[in-house]
Amino acid sequence: MSRRFTVGLDLGGTNIKAGLLDEAGRLVHRKAIPTEGERGYAHVVSRLAAVVGDLLAEAHVNRAEVIGVGLGSPGPMSPEDGIVHGAPNLPGWVNVPVQRDLSSATGLPVMLDNDANLYALGEFTAGAGRASRDMVLLTLGTGIGGGIILNGQLFRGRHGNAGEVGHMLVVPDGRACPCGQRGCLERYASATAVAERFADAVRAGEPSLLAERIHAGVGVSSREIAAAAGTDALAGRIWDEACRFLAVACVNLQHVLNVEQIVLGGGMIGAGELLLRPVREHFERLTWRVAKDAPRIELARLGDDAGIIGAAAAARELEGRSRRPGPGAPSA
Amino acid sequence: MSRRFTVGLDLGGTNIKAGLLDEAGRLVHRKAIPTEGERGYAHVVSRLAAVVGDLLAEAHVNRAEVIGVGLGSPGPMSPEDGIVHGAPNLPGWVNVPVQRDLSSATGLPVMLDNDANLYALGEFTAGAGRASRDMVLLTLGTGIGGGIILNGQLFRGRHGNAGEVGHMLVVPDGRACPCGQRGCLERYASATAVAERFADAVRAGEPSLLAERIHAGVGVSSREIAAAAGTDALAGRIWDEACRFLAVACVNLQHVLNVEQIVLGGGMIGAGELLLRPVREHFERLTWRVAKDAPRIELARLGDDAGIIGAAAAARELEGRSRRPGPGAPSA
Repeated sequence: MSRRFTVGLDLGGTNIKAGLLDEAGRLVHRKAIPTEGERGYAHVVSRLAAVVGDLLAEAHVNRAEVIGVGLGSPGPMSPEDGIVHGAPNLPGWVNVPVQRDLSSATGLPVMLDNDANLYALGEFTAGAGRASRDMVLLTLGTGIGGGIILNGQLFRGRHGNAGEVGHMLVVPDGRACPCGQRGCLERYASATAVAERFADAVRAGEPSLLAERIHAGVGVSSREIAAAAGTDALAGRIWDEACRFLAVACVNLQHVLNVEQIVLGGGMIGAGELLLRPVREHFERLTWRVAKDAPRIELARLGDDAGIIGAAAAARELEGRSRRPGPGAPSA
Repeated sequence: MSRRFTVGLDLGGTNIKAGLLDEAGRLVHRKAIPTEGERGYAHVVSRLAAVVGDLLAEAHVNRAEVIGVGLGSPGPMSPEDGIVHGAPNLPGWVNVPVQRDLSSATGLPVMLDNDANLYALGEFTAGAGRASRDMVLLTLGTGIGGGIILNGQLFRGRHGNAGEVGHMLVVPDGRACPCGQRGCLERYASATAVAERFADAVRAGEPSLLAERIHAGVGVSSREIAAAAGTDALAGRIWDEACRFLAVACVNLQHVLNVEQIVLGGGMIGAGELLLRPVREHFERLTWRVAKDAPRIELARLGDDAGIIGAAAAARELEGRSRRPGPGAPSA
């Protein structure tokens, strides 16, 4: 029996990350190249195709041994139609048929999905969620995204937007969000929001050991705020509020979906225990006492590889599509 | 081919409601008797068995023509084990094997589930959700319960507690809930909460045309508060806040589950448009502008019949269990 591989692509505004996985789901080769998004859609598709070609050549794998390519892209998009409707950091990506075009350029079947969903699928298949059946992953970065796995499958919802946990309202009529709502979770608990709220408070006159940085126009990052939370009162308050709002979201996900695990991912988890411990403590304090059904709250484990591993896992579905059960296939 | 019927039972603290459905899902006969819960578990099981017997006799249906019995009960419970762990209004219902006992008493297969789930299944199969694939139902009454249908199936979650939407936190650290949390949706938007918050405000000195009723110890119901919302400032504020919190919950369900429809059910929907219009208006104001993926928000349509219709629909699953495909059955 021949070897079977899948390719996972994680398309970002800055870099394209690519990975080759074997039939056991092991990441056997990886590669990253600059996206060069400013050169437009067709150029980026040729970059994606080129990195697939290089990946296979370097690993001595033939195209015939590849089941397909999974592509994680920023959205919004229609995964079933293979179309990206718009990607904020990729000029010209407006209603582009990237699934069809990348398939033509590579000669391989392609499956498209949004990057947060594939990040979740990666952690589910090979990372923090390996022992779970149901899981929600929150990506804590510039914004807050999310992906939901139910009964071992990605759950996308009616319009493909399930898992947009960053836009749950935690302070109705609170801070304005570019989405048009007020009081979204990501306006209080994303890396961007933590840095903004800290700067706003300093400008409003609240004292902080880091105030000079703000007055000098330098800015203080969410990671620095987390690190200072134990020694600086303002940093401590802003960071603790972010963790408390994340815990509120976890309680609400507990009661709506009753998942067994919530995984925190994205750049903000660089804070490690400074993030996980207070989120868990607030959760324990906030959640109900009538049933022992709390989800395990844990950190993602795959780092930058989650997206490519999830994309490659999604590409496995392509195998089923190109085959039909023969007349002797079992009925159940 | 013989006729095939299912029986649905809706067990409440006051009454047992029973319905007989034909193979087309039509409710062909119904019956209600007092629960007599104060006489204990064994007595209630015999009442449940008796009402099934009476229902079949009155409709001239033989036991052999019945696929099975669906039983909706208050919980918590383990549906897969057929055990109710505790029902607040039913003395003695502590870890009782009601599925086994009712099956013995009736000679029919029995399927157990929680009442809010079966209410949702009823509205999904024969009521407001007939045209939907994904739906969340909120039962607005003494508390707020819920049931979730995804891809046409009840979604129960890891521990069977999915859809406990009444315990989503809408005011973190807000009003205390018997569940142990503070700020649950049901402390602001259930019929009980509306009446309590109104009485609290009057006792705190806020003026109202209905204040005398509170001072006289009579109480004002949520329905009266809804009816007075247009003419009494305090009633208007309390009712509007309840509707706003329901809309917040709808926004959060939109972003987590991305369902196509949210159905409002339970006693509180007796207020009709006085409830639906402000919930929809708050939702429109609160929800995002970046995607057109808002759920339809509608009222339940089956009234008291939803529970028995949903229970009977659940009993249809029993048919698949007692049969196996023969060797000539098609494979797909």
